[in-house]
Amino acid sequence: MRYTVVLDTMGSDNGAAVLVKGAGLAIEKNEDLDIILVGNSEEILAACCENNIPADRYEIVHTDEVITNYDSAAAVLFEKPNSSLAVALKTTAERDDVVGIVNAGNTGALMTGALKHLSGESRVRPALAAILPAENGGFVCLVDTGATIDCTPQMLVHFAHLGSDFMKNMYKLEAPRVGLLSNGAEKTKGNKVVKETHALLEGCDDLNFVGNIEGNNALSGACDVLVCDGFAGNQVLKVTEGTAKRIITDVVKIAKTTGNKEYMALAGQLMAKYDLSSLGGGIILGAKKSVIKARGSSNELSIMNTIGIVLNLAKNKNVYNTENT
Amino acid sequence: MRYTVVLDTMGSDNGAAVLVKGAGLAIEKNEDLDIILVGNSEEILAACCENNIPADRYEIVHTDEVITNYDSAAAVLFEKPNSSLAVALKTTAERDDVVGIVNAGNTGALMTGALKHLSGESRVRPALAAILPAENGGFVCLVDTGATIDCTPQMLVHFAHLGSDFMKNMYKLEAPRVGLLSNGAEKTKGNKVVKETHALLEGCDDLNFVGNIEGNNALSGACDVLVCDGFAGNQVLKVTEGTAKRIITDVVKIAKTTGNKEYMALAGQLMAKYDLSSLGGGIILGAKKSVIKARGSSNELSIMNTIGIVLNLAKNKNVYNTENT
Repeated sequence: MRYTVVLDTMGSDNGAAVLVKGAGLAIEKNEDLDIILVGNSEEILAACCENNIPADRYEIVHTDEVITNYDSAAAVLFEKPNSSLAVALKTTAERDDVVGIVNAGNTGALMTGALKHLSGESRVRPALAAILPAENGGFVCLVDTGATIDCTPQMLVHFAHLGSDFMKNMYKLEAPRVGLLSNGAEKTKGNKVVKETHALLEGCDDLNFVGNIEGNNALSGACDVLVCDGFAGNQVLKVTEGTAKRIITDVVKIAKTTGNKEYMALAGQLMAKYDLSSLGGGIILGAKKSVIKARGSSNELSIMNTIGIVLNLAKNKNVYNTENT
Repeated sequence: MRYTVVLDTMGSDNGAAVLVKGAGLAIEKNEDLDIILVGNSEEILAACCENNIPADRYEIVHTDEVITNYDSAAAVLFEKPNSSLAVALKTTAERDDVVGIVNAGNTGALMTGALKHLSGESRVRPALAAILPAENGGFVCLVDTGATIDCTPQMLVHFAHLGSDFMKNMYKLEAPRVGLLSNGAEKTKGNKVVKETHALLEGCDDLNFVGNIEGNNALSGACDVLVCDGFAGNQVLKVTEGTAKRIITDVVKIAKTTGNKEYMALAGQLMAKYDLSSLGGGIILGAKKSVIKARGSSNELSIMNTIGIVLNLAKNKNVYNTENT
C-alpha cells in the first residue's frame, strides 16, 4: 500500500527550498511514500531537481498566494482561498489517497482551515498537541499548546480524550495515563477551571486519569497525556525551551572560557537532545486526517521527521479522529 | 543601628536545628543583626549551644504548637493562635525593633497570617514573589508565584506596582521594566485576563511597562518584574526547576557513563547555579514589614541567605509596603 502526504511549501521562515529538501529526504527514507507539494511550481521544481527527487514520487500543485504570520487566521477561508494552505487543505480533504498534511506557517490559519476542511461529523473542537520526549524515555502528549487559550472544563475533557486516543494509536499504549496540569498535586489545587476539570475527569471511566501533575513533572513521564489550556501549554513549552537554551549556553560559555573541548562536545549532545524544534512541532488532534504543524523555523531534517509522523499515524490506522472520540 | 529578624523555627521539612544553624551563620556574618527564635525552647537552646551562637544576639520565644502543611491556611488565625507562626507574626507586628520575619512552613498560613498581622492601611492584596537570577546577570521579580491562583486584571496591576516598588528598593533600579507573561509578544495575545491587564498596564504612567513577555524570555532579563497570576507563576517556577534538574541529571549520567570527572565538576557548577531553592524562596510583597517564605527544604545556607535579604531590605529602608503603592 502507498501513502500520500501533502506538504504546504509556503509560509515558513526558511523558504520553500528547505521544505522540499525535507520532503526529498522523507521520500528517500520511506519507499511507500508519495508527496504532493503545494506552492510556487517553479521554485518547487528547481528544488526537486537540485535534490534529485524521483519525478514519479511527487506531484506539484501550483499557487502563488501565501498566508503569512501577519494574516488573520480566517484569511484562509475568506481573503485568500487560493493560498497554498487553503489549496493544500482542500487537496488533503478531497483526495482519498492523501493521509495527512504538513504545514510550517500560520498556526491559527492551519487550525481554522482544518476546522473547515477536515473536521469530523461530531464537531468536537480540535486541539493543538505537542509530542515531547519524557525524562523516562517515553513521550508525553501535551494538549493544548496554544490553539485555544481560554478553555472551559468541558473543552479540557475533550482534549483529554483526544490525547488519550492519539497515544493509544501512535504508541500502542493500552491505557494512556492522563494528567491534569496544576499548581499542586492535591485535587484541591488549581484555578477554577482546573478544579472543575479534575472533578469531571474523575468521572470519565474511559480515561486512565492519574490526577494533577505539577510543572516540574510535566515532562518527567509521570503521565502520557498532559491536559491544560493553550495559555498554560504555551508556558510549559516555552519555559522548557528557554531554560534548556540558557543552561546549554552556559555550558558553551564555560567550554569557551576554559578551552575544554569535551565540554563543547557535551553542549552539542545536550543541544541535539533538547532542541524541541527538531521534534516537528504540533499535531492537530480531532481532524479526519493527520494535520501537523511544523515549526516555522524547521530545517530539512525536522520536515522529514514530521512527514514520518504522518506516515506512522496512517500505518497505525489513524483512528484518533472525531468520530472515535 | 541594630536590626532584629524573627525566625519561625517550626513547620519546615528539616527540623528546627537546621534553621537555628542558619540563624547562627547569619549572626556571624552580620554584626548588626539580632534574631528572635520562635518555637520549642529546649530544642532551640540545644541548637544554639551546639552552634556557639552568642547568647546576647538571640532571644527565644517558646511555644509548642506547630502549623503543618496539612493545616488549612486559616488555622493560623483560628485553631492554632499559639502556633509558632502566629506567635512569630504577632511578635513581628508588635515589636518596633523587628524588621521582618522568615518562615519555612505552610505558605498559605504565612500569607493569611501576614494579612491579619502585617497588612497596611490601604488593604492592597499582598502577593507572593520570587526573586530569580536572570540570564543577563540581573534579577527578575516574578509575581505572583502561587498565593492568588485566580486573578482579576486589577489584581495583576497591583502586583505590577508591588513588584516595581520592590525592585526599586532592593536593587536601586530607577524604572524597573515591568513585563506581562503571555503566550505571544503582541498585545493581542493572551487569555482574557491577560489581554485586559495589558490595556490597564499601558495606562499606568507610574510603571515602565514593556509589554508581553513569552515563557522563553521569562528569566532572560527582558524585564525586571514579570507579572502573572499564581497559576502561571507556579508553572514558570516549577517548569524551570524541572527542566534544569533534568538536564543536570543528564550531565551527571553522561559523566558516570564516560567516567569523565570534568563533566561531574561541570554538573556541580550547574547545580549550584540552577538550584532555585538556594535563593531562599518567596517574598510577600505588600506587607508592612518584610515577610519571607523560605523553602520547606531549606538548609542552613539558604536560611542564612534569606535572613540576609530581610536585613538588606531593612537597610534599603524597606519602603515597598502597602502605604507606598
